[in-house]
Amino acid sequence: MNLEKTLKRLDQTRDESVSRLSELLKFKSISTNSKYKIDCISTAKWLVNELNTIGFNASLRETTGNPMVVAHTTKSKGDFLFYGHYDVQPVDPLKEWEDDPFEPKIKSISGEKVIVARGASDDKGQLMTFIEACRAINYVNNSFPINLSILLEGEEETSSPSLVPFLKKNTSELKCKYALVCDTGMWDKKTPSITCSLRGMLSEEISIKGPNRDLHSGIYGGVVNNPLKVMSDLLSNLHDKNGKVDIPYFYNGVEAVSKELKKEWKKLRFSEETFLKNLGMSKSFGEKNYSLLERLWGRPTCEINGMWGGYIEEGFKTVIPSEAHAKISFRLVGDQNPEEIRLNFRKKLMNDLPEDFEIKFSNHKGSKATQFPLNDEIINKAQKALSDEWNSKTIFEGGGGSIPIVQHFKNILDMDTLLVGFALDDDNIHSPNEKYNLKSFYKGARSWVRIIDEIAKN
Amino acid sequence: MNLEKTLKRLDQTRDESVSRLSELLKFKSISTNSKYKIDCISTAKWLVNELNTIGFNASLRETTGNPMVVAHTTKSKGDFLFYGHYDVQPVDPLKEWEDDPFEPKIKSISGEKVIVARGASDDKGQLMTFIEACRAINYVNNSFPINLSILLEGEEETSSPSLVPFLKKNTSELKCKYALVCDTGMWDKKTPSITCSLRGMLSEEISIKGPNRDLHSGIYGGVVNNPLKVMSDLLSNLHDKNGKVDIPYFYNGVEAVSKELKKEWKKLRFSEETFLKNLGMSKSFGEKNYSLLERLWGRPTCEINGMWGGYIEEGFKTVIPSEAHAKISFRLVGDQNPEEIRLNFRKKLMNDLPEDFEIKFSNHKGSKATQFPLNDEIINKAQKALSDEWNSKTIFEGGGGSIPIVQHFKNILDMDTLLVGFALDDDNIHSPNEKYNLKSFYKGARSWVRIIDEIAKN
Repeated sequence: MNLEKTLKRLDQTRDESVSRLSELLKFKSISTNSKYKIDCISTAKWLVNELNTIGFNASLRETTGNPMVVAHTTKSKGDFLFYGHYDVQPVDPLKEWEDDPFEPKIKSISGEKVIVARGASDDKGQLMTFIEACRAINYVNNSFPINLSILLEGEEETSSPSLVPFLKKNTSELKCKYALVCDTGMWDKKTPSITCSLRGMLSEEISIKGPNRDLHSGIYGGVVNNPLKVMSDLLSNLHDKNGKVDIPYFYNGVEAVSKELKKEWKKLRFSEETFLKNLGMSKSFGEKNYSLLERLWGRPTCEINGMWGGYIEEGFKTVIPSEAHAKISFRLVGDQNPEEIRLNFRKKLMNDLPEDFEIKFSNHKGSKATQFPLNDEIINKAQKALSDEWNSKTIFEGGGGSIPIVQHFKNILDMDTLLVGFALDDDNIHSPNEKYNLKSFYKGARSWVRIIDEIAKN
Repeated sequence: MNLEKTLKRLDQTRDESVSRLSELLKFKSISTNSKYKIDCISTAKWLVNELNTIGFNASLRETTGNPMVVAHTTKSKGDFLFYGHYDVQPVDPLKEWEDDPFEPKIKSISGEKVIVARGASDDKGQLMTFIEACRAINYVNNSFPINLSILLEGEEETSSPSLVPFLKKNTSELKCKYALVCDTGMWDKKTPSITCSLRGMLSEEISIKGPNRDLHSGIYGGVVNNPLKVMSDLLSNLHDKNGKVDIPYFYNGVEAVSKELKKEWKKLRFSEETFLKNLGMSKSFGEKNYSLLERLWGRPTCEINGMWGGYIEEGFKTVIPSEAHAKISFRLVGDQNPEEIRLNFRKKLMNDLPEDFEIKFSNHKGSKATQFPLNDEIINKAQKALSDEWNSKTIFEGGGGSIPIVQHFKNILDMDTLLVGFALDDDNIHSPNEKYNLKSFYKGARSWVRIIDEIAKN
């Protein structure tokens, strides 16, 4: 393929690329709330149409949840499978958004042009870097130098309930040599990065019930155990005084970060002070005796993601509520087993629950952590391509978040994954005013052109 | 006045009385949410109209909040001031109501006719017992044997912000010999009761803020202190292991319940087992070494009435939220000082707050506890009237809830209060499916006729 002409084509069609991204960002493809299902379907259809115009045979594939988009450059499967997700996080708290989260706006922030919208960075902007790269390759070269397949799902933000059945049902169609995933970040604005480890994830929702109805705190206060008090106690006891997760056997399978990786991480330009200042904090928090990066990438966590109960509207209601609720998630590393942890977590809570109380658990999915070899052929080629594009050494970083798909690709399709992405730390993903730098978008697309060109070389 | 004829008139016009109560219950006079202000005004106007037809000069009186209803049987004030409140609690959780909370329904529960609606018992049904009594007295006797005034407010469920200024502004108009309040309960279905002590109340709303925005728990989990975890710790530390409130100087001013009262309470027919069973519990909870009734009526408490933060909708969002919130209230006894407790509560939380965290407190009002003498003339007359009507000895009970108005009547108008009411423990006040027994309503009105008759005697 003609690399230079393809990159030039991308540079010449930037405005059209941004227009297409804006179109995609207007869809309210929130997967965590079923009322947006119709929007998710519309998003998938839009993607199918786009892919069919740039050299792919694309189709929408039904699941019991949101549909998959599957596309191939050949009659059947490709040699490389690109994965992204078109669903996005909810937008609350809506009042903290400066603009409508589904009316993308180009803004200038500290001299950088950015596009602001829910999903701008996670993951619509990122998946579009790959699609725009493919569009330019197809336009300039009228073909692709390697056979490509694309799989875009619409349930990533809800732990991908339809994905495993779909992969199992379509193994022969989807199995490739390698998966390419664009859902991670740059090390900083100038430094490209390949993610070489990912934490696993386990989430649980709990509801406890004490008295059989809401009670007046004047009439009953002092003689019944308040479910909000019980919930506070339960949640407060999930960590010990040293910041360690206080669940039996939780640290089983946690491996120390390898010396090789620790060395890589030590070399990184990283200012703990700047990192924390950006969050409005002066001091970091967590397990003693581990560096901040080690805690982020190599240590497991337990976080409360939501809790509620009683009267939570304007004004005051002196109620002892019947119930209290919480959403809790764990990040896992090494060989930690999500199902064993789920069991021990539940056992602990049931054990700590006062007499007369009931507890209910809602099943959310879990996934194990993943680690990649640093000296793999594809990883090395991507490293070269990224360094060429960004004119800076590509670094290997850990990933604190979870991309369970990587685990599924390995287990179901026996396929390794290359994790490359162009998001930045201040992109506000999962938060109000999510953004994607246009530089990430333009150079991200150029990066994929270079990676595909590099992979195509013998 | 002709007592027998008046009581007969009440018995003959029961259906009309219930119709009028139903009309009153249809108003959505929720005072905790400002969007129902218009409904509160309509309720007050309806009450003014009613009172003007039964021998009172009634008027609606503006405040900065919901209006007061003031009425007199004479040109100026009466000798006895009846107080009630026309505002009601919110209705959530709405899904637990069997019927629309503002479409009153007559139902039969365990052989008893009841009227079900928000406010049926607290306080619309109760205040209507007095109004229906006055209607019958006026109809039969064409006058009242004692001069009466009526004050109905619309902000009782939000700690009565307009009441103190109103009492201060209208002291000469509202000061009477004695206040009559109908906002308490019967001991049981057969036993009338006069409440001789009330707990005080203090409520606080707190918001804490950690990171300057919501964060992704994968990307930041392990290095920042989660506000939901911090809130759990703060709330969990409000009590010690023995169920005592763990705030410095909290028990200052708490007096032991008098021997006289303890003796009265011991004589009461009371089954702890039945009481708890009715709540779905097998064991009581709270401070050691105090009887259940003592804990309810004579000991202070601290309760969490609401808490929330993070993602609390359907599905899952792996967020570390920036903020967490809680509503907390205290019940006070003896000479406990609400403002001192507020100060020490705030100090404790600020002290326990981790570095980099902010905390905000919202001011809600506080009131001290109240105790009445057991050998007062009016109390003894009411005791006789109630015993006559219910054919059962009237008992003296403690009140776990707070009626701050009683404190204000004493402090501002130098006026003692008689607390008589006909609510039952299973009336579900502040809860879904609130009800008022029609027997409470009919015999409540008859009781007021007898009390007024008794007071009028020399």
